Amino acid sequence: MAAGNGEFDGAFRQQLDSLMQWRRDVRRFRTDTVPAPLLQECLDAFLLAPSVGLSEPWRVVQVNSGAARQAALSNYQAANERALDGYSGDKAQMYAGLKLSGMQEAPVQLAVFCDEETPKGSGLGAQSMPEMRRYSVVSAINLFWLSARARGIGVGWVSILDPEALCRDLDVPENWRLIAYLCVGYPETTSDTPELQKVGWEERRGHLPFETR
Amino acid sequence: MAAGNGEFDGAFRQQLDSLMQWRRDVRRFRTDTVPAPLLQECLDAFLLAPSVGLSEPWRVVQVNSGAARQAALSNYQAANERALDGYSGDKAQMYAGLKLSGMQEAPVQLAVFCDEETPKGSGLGAQSMPEMRRYSVVSAINLFWLSARARGIGVGWVSILDPEALCRDLDVPENWRLIAYLCVGYPETTSDTPELQKVGWEERRGHLPFETR
Repeated sequence: MAAGNGEFDGAFRQQLDSLMQWRRDVRRFRTDTVPAPLLQECLDAFLLAPSVGLSEPWRVVQVNSGAARQAALSNYQAANERALDGYSGDKAQMYAGLKLSGMQEAPVQLAVFCDEETPKGSGLGAQSMPEMRRYSVVSAINLFWLSARARGIGVGWVSILDPEALCRDLDVPENWRLIAYLCVGYPETTSDTPELQKVGWEERRGHLPFETR
Repeated sequence: MAAGNGEFDGAFRQQLDSLMQWRRDVRRFRTDTVPAPLLQECLDAFLLAPSVGLSEPWRVVQVNSGAARQAALSNYQAANERALDGYSGDKAQMYAGLKLSGMQEAPVQLAVFCDEETPKGSGLGAQSMPEMRRYSVVSAINLFWLSARARGIGVGWVSILDPEALCRDLDVPENWRLIAYLCVGYPETTSDTPELQKVGWEERRGHLPFETR
């Protein structure tokens, strides 16, 4: 039985808007741990996420061991070097100075996968667009992200990775695809402005590209 | 300037949890329109969504004309026939009886795309995982979905479609990829239980598949 009656008032909507405004992609973490019951509360958001055909294809691996963390960090560092090679001039200089992951500090690190061949849901809704399973996992991550932020916990999504290599390093089943590597912990600071905007890499657009047909 | 101070209390967290519990993939809509200012409030959630490198690759097309709606509906009907062919026996019979889209009733219909080649963000975070742009669009859709639900508006994500054909039918730029076709409107009913669970297609798992490395 769900809490409430499914009705929400203006005060709640205002706070929800504020939650979205204060959600950040966090790369600077304090190193103190997140209490296990609090992490569990955040993870419970996965159970409420939408998934195509109720396939619930998300699979979460908590990366704890020194060896697994080093493999992930080395993967990131190599991918980041390759990414840097794609820039030149001022942009290269700026890129080299960016802090793009909290993998060396974040106390909790989660690799999130999609089981591309789960029988759950019997394929409903995923036959013409099989990518819907991956989108379901992304949906769950977003609910987790908001749920964490509402508890003062920051999440950073690292995507500068060779996903196939990380799957091998973490020895996950062959039909699992990496969707996200998440750094989780208490953020050093809170802000309503994206870090990439603060440092001048890119600005938020401020309007939605919208057309009609 | 964002509202609030980035801190949230237990009462808010409880309501946020309740919002996630009452969010549904809606297929049964009332036909009365959603006031434009209210729709705009929901769409404003896109502006707060996370996006890789601040690329904001989402592109939204409101499908209004009779011709465009008919093209989308025909596309769905054909894809649904093909999907039905993939089932046999009881499952085929059950599938044939499911209502899987509200495209014939929903007053607002949005096709949401990813601009796969947007220069915005200069490719940051998307070089080794270009799918991150698509995941950013999925993230924005989830914020829109929650924002709508908090306003009593239902959203249904239709994925039983030939995405390339729909791009041609809606005459969108070549570098746009279909992420979602969203039906939006007031739901006929509210519920804390997924429709696919109610009709016995699939159940929610109730626990998160979780491993450590």
